[in-house]
Amino acid sequence: MRKQLQALRDAMAQHRIDACLIPTDDFHGSEYVGEHFACRKYISGFTGSAGTLLVFPQWAGLWTDGRYFLQAEAQLKDSGIRLMKMGEPGVPTLEEFLRDSLQPDQTLAFDGRCVSARAGRKYYRMAKTLGARINDRLDLVGEIWPDRPPLSAQPVWELSKESAGESRRDKLTRVRAVMAAEGAEILLLTGLEDIAWLLNLRGDDVACTPVFLSYLALTRTGCLLFAQPAAFSPALIARLGADGVELRPYESFYSYANSLSAGQRVMLSTQRINTKVLTSIPPEVRLVDRPNPTEAMRAVKNETEQANLAQAHLCDGIALTRFMYWLKKNAGMLPITERSAAAHLEELRKAQPDYLGPSFDPILAFGPHGAVIHYSATEETDAAITDAGFLLADTGGHYRTGTTDCTRTYALGPLRPDQKTAYTAVLRGNLNLAAARFKKGCTGINLDYLARQPLWDLGLDFNHGTGHGVGYLLSVHEGPQSIRWRNPAGAAFVPGMVTSDEPGVYFDGDYGIRLENLMLCVERETTPFGTFLGFETLTLTPFDLDAVEPGQMSPAEKALLNDYHARVRDAITPHLPPEEAAWLQEATRPVE
Amino acid sequence: MRKQLQALRDAMAQHRIDACLIPTDDFHGSEYVGEHFACRKYISGFTGSAGTLLVFPQWAGLWTDGRYFLQAEAQLKDSGIRLMKMGEPGVPTLEEFLRDSLQPDQTLAFDGRCVSARAGRKYYRMAKTLGARINDRLDLVGEIWPDRPPLSAQPVWELSKESAGESRRDKLTRVRAVMAAEGAEILLLTGLEDIAWLLNLRGDDVACTPVFLSYLALTRTGCLLFAQPAAFSPALIARLGADGVELRPYESFYSYANSLSAGQRVMLSTQRINTKVLTSIPPEVRLVDRPNPTEAMRAVKNETEQANLAQAHLCDGIALTRFMYWLKKNAGMLPITERSAAAHLEELRKAQPDYLGPSFDPILAFGPHGAVIHYSATEETDAAITDAGFLLADTGGHYRTGTTDCTRTYALGPLRPDQKTAYTAVLRGNLNLAAARFKKGCTGINLDYLARQPLWDLGLDFNHGTGHGVGYLLSVHEGPQSIRWRNPAGAAFVPGMVTSDEPGVYFDGDYGIRLENLMLCVERETTPFGTFLGFETLTLTPFDLDAVEPGQMSPAEKALLNDYHARVRDAITPHLPPEEAAWLQEATRPVE
Repeated sequence: MRKQLQALRDAMAQHRIDACLIPTDDFHGSEYVGEHFACRKYISGFTGSAGTLLVFPQWAGLWTDGRYFLQAEAQLKDSGIRLMKMGEPGVPTLEEFLRDSLQPDQTLAFDGRCVSARAGRKYYRMAKTLGARINDRLDLVGEIWPDRPPLSAQPVWELSKESAGESRRDKLTRVRAVMAAEGAEILLLTGLEDIAWLLNLRGDDVACTPVFLSYLALTRTGCLLFAQPAAFSPALIARLGADGVELRPYESFYSYANSLSAGQRVMLSTQRINTKVLTSIPPEVRLVDRPNPTEAMRAVKNETEQANLAQAHLCDGIALTRFMYWLKKNAGMLPITERSAAAHLEELRKAQPDYLGPSFDPILAFGPHGAVIHYSATEETDAAITDAGFLLADTGGHYRTGTTDCTRTYALGPLRPDQKTAYTAVLRGNLNLAAARFKKGCTGINLDYLARQPLWDLGLDFNHGTGHGVGYLLSVHEGPQSIRWRNPAGAAFVPGMVTSDEPGVYFDGDYGIRLENLMLCVERETTPFGTFLGFETLTLTPFDLDAVEPGQMSPAEKALLNDYHARVRDAITPHLPPEEAAWLQEATRPVE
Repeated sequence: MRKQLQALRDAMAQHRIDACLIPTDDFHGSEYVGEHFACRKYISGFTGSAGTLLVFPQWAGLWTDGRYFLQAEAQLKDSGIRLMKMGEPGVPTLEEFLRDSLQPDQTLAFDGRCVSARAGRKYYRMAKTLGARINDRLDLVGEIWPDRPPLSAQPVWELSKESAGESRRDKLTRVRAVMAAEGAEILLLTGLEDIAWLLNLRGDDVACTPVFLSYLALTRTGCLLFAQPAAFSPALIARLGADGVELRPYESFYSYANSLSAGQRVMLSTQRINTKVLTSIPPEVRLVDRPNPTEAMRAVKNETEQANLAQAHLCDGIALTRFMYWLKKNAGMLPITERSAAAHLEELRKAQPDYLGPSFDPILAFGPHGAVIHYSATEETDAAITDAGFLLADTGGHYRTGTTDCTRTYALGPLRPDQKTAYTAVLRGNLNLAAARFKKGCTGINLDYLARQPLWDLGLDFNHGTGHGVGYLLSVHEGPQSIRWRNPAGAAFVPGMVTSDEPGVYFDGDYGIRLENLMLCVERETTPFGTFLGFETLTLTPFDLDAVEPGQMSPAEKALLNDYHARVRDAITPHLPPEEAAWLQEATRPVE
């Protein structure tokens, strides 16, 4: 048994805890978490990005999804922790398991800061039904983790108004207007992207996301920022103060929440805050449970952000195009692996001005790995890239001018006809969605068909969403809009939103294809019949014509492809060495 | 003042009623109502199909929508009733008006049988807030209407199993299985289409809908049909009895509902039943509020119904094609009006075997009338049809083999280029939607874009749904599926569903275009990626090629049009006189 697991059980016994839940989450519901928050990894030894550990004195299990079954099986060997394969027949969900295992009068513990208010309510309800108790105030792992990395407190830096396009003061005014409309006196924000956007600040406390650990309480006249003072320069503190933003210790947010008084109307989003925030607020406080107003605001990029994004995508396009040249030239000639290719691409991005780092863990997946939708090459799986098969590369970067996310699938060596047909269908879906022209009020559910139609016509499909919002130097995945056909598709498109367009198709054990561009929503026309919107493609790097079967494309689709390639060629060529520029002419040649 | 209004006020005084609400509804929430139920028309003199009358001792008002402003203004002249134009600025809704006018301790009366349970609850809540009372047990108009037409009791007739494709017994078994799954002992059905479908019976008590007045109570072993015995032959009563269906007097349904006992679990749909049904049920009864299971069942046409529908659409196609020939030949030559053209089309349908009558009030709208979406020619508006403009014809029929609904817009004389462009865009939308191939699970909200895309590309749009379900020898409008882009689009498509495909475009004061076919949902293919569905077009009559601009169609769209016209030609030609057959060859010629 892992000694960390034994230590946790000792701590549980000391606190009279009968069951302990350890999720993979920070205090802010971030998509990625910093090392300080890697409690589940510390106790279990499992390093995957998703999983929840449940520990009883005599039993422990880790729930994770299909992406990680193999990895978790290996890493949990001899740990004393059972792998619970989510979604497999006969495997109970964590909730079902808890409901069957937790006895009356027993106590379930979790760190309420790492469990969303929504999930926390579920556990409280379950405990009530069972006659059991919840303790959400213990950080048991923290008690037994001697060399735990401290909370990250990287320097916080400021986006100038020229770079953000809207001053902090103006943003505060806009958000206060929403609070006034909702009759709220206080707004609590705990999402790191919301706070970073609102204050025009950025940091580096969370992997792949340039945000900083913080909570925020906004009143009609004041603004309290709960963050780590060490991360702020005196000059920045002064500038924040000039805008009415007062710095408070990060940890004091909960006592602040506890000090709110009855009769105050406090706006927050129970979808975003954690359980401890909710349970810290005295029950007499009147809650106005609404989506954070900052979510819809930051989804709409202003003109400055749009202009900057064009620059970011030019830089990213240069790096990606040079990567494609290098790959197509050297695959099968040089020893290249998924990880070395990723490293090369990272070098090419680093050569671009204003590059900050990856916007998510890069996915470079060769051959059959391409069919694993969330594949991430590890030392063990790292495959050699040869000249026979597809390389799927889904990568993105943060630049000081914005965030990118792009997927290309490259044909290395000759393809079978069915592979070309599949690639061409995915490409047609990508192009047709980007060409959509639609009435104001449409959501992604109205447009998803465009991306899937060529696949559905062939009896093919892909089992993921078609598009997600992309933050501006924030999280690469954000709402409120999305493109999908099943679930309610979120908010209507608004000019200024950036959304991905990423159809794909995956053949288990054989290959996978995904083609992803980012699109900016723009207004096209207002007529007596209404306002019509469309998209402008931001991403600037070729699709691989070696995989395209022009005979399967309509004249309109060929025109879309040729227009796009002409834009790529015009934008990227001036930034390439002569040999690569010559290659790009050929790589973006018109198809007929 | 109208003497009927005075008589109503006298009755109100006698019963100490302070306000009386008179909707346009029968006891069953039917789309059309019989003459017995025309109370609002009797009191107000307004003959439109929609409107609600509210009468106080000193004031009376009629709320109706934009379709009827002109007509209502004329018909309400000197009636003492004020026209309340719904949706116009400054005009309160009926609910707002009531909330402002009804005083504490006053009593609002309506016939609870003519108000849906949902609306009734709203009025009860409002009265509670105001400290006012509701009386939903009075039929005040009935008390003062000396020559009121009796309840219709047309003969009820039976669909044989060969014609219905499923026996009454088998349907009862299927519905009882749903009741068992919901733990319900009794199911109350009050929708006339639900009852007619379940029992394989049809009647003629409601305009444009071959159903009969009835309520139904289904138990695990028995079935009580509350209907008018005079409408049933002894032989039919015997056959129903053999299937366990017992006839009870129509009016006794409410005392039956009142006799339900505490502890019984009674399934019903509060979206469908009327207020009096709901208030008749003792409060101790446990209600299971669910959509009527019959709604989803009757939406899916079985193989026999599908085969019959092909026959119905062949007959309808012959009539419609002969109408097109007659119209194109004679417009501008013979004196034809909207109403005389409708009469001619009705004659052509009557010449077909098994024709029963129109499935809705025909819309024949010439020139600018075509832009009035729910236009219905009256004696006053009946326009001469000349050889200069579009005639929009939206008509349908009930045949013993099923129900049709078709819209064609005919070019009479030369068109302007913008008219051809508009027609071609509507046609492209119609064809592209019908050609959709989609994953099982899709609803109309996923596909609506296909019908609108060609219009949206031109900055045009239409302000109505794109498709509705169509009953089998029942109502021409039914759920649970629909095709629209805004509101949740209802149920997923299921093979066997019949749905309309009717994009349009309307230019106020100029012209309107709508093109409507009915489509049968069919399974196309099941692959490792899922099951894929599509549509087969049922309607068989040409689009008007004189209005088509082939240069604006893609090769794929031209192929769809030509394939459809070939089907029409092959099906209809054998049934036409030689001259018309020759014309049809030309009218369905391939476009290039």
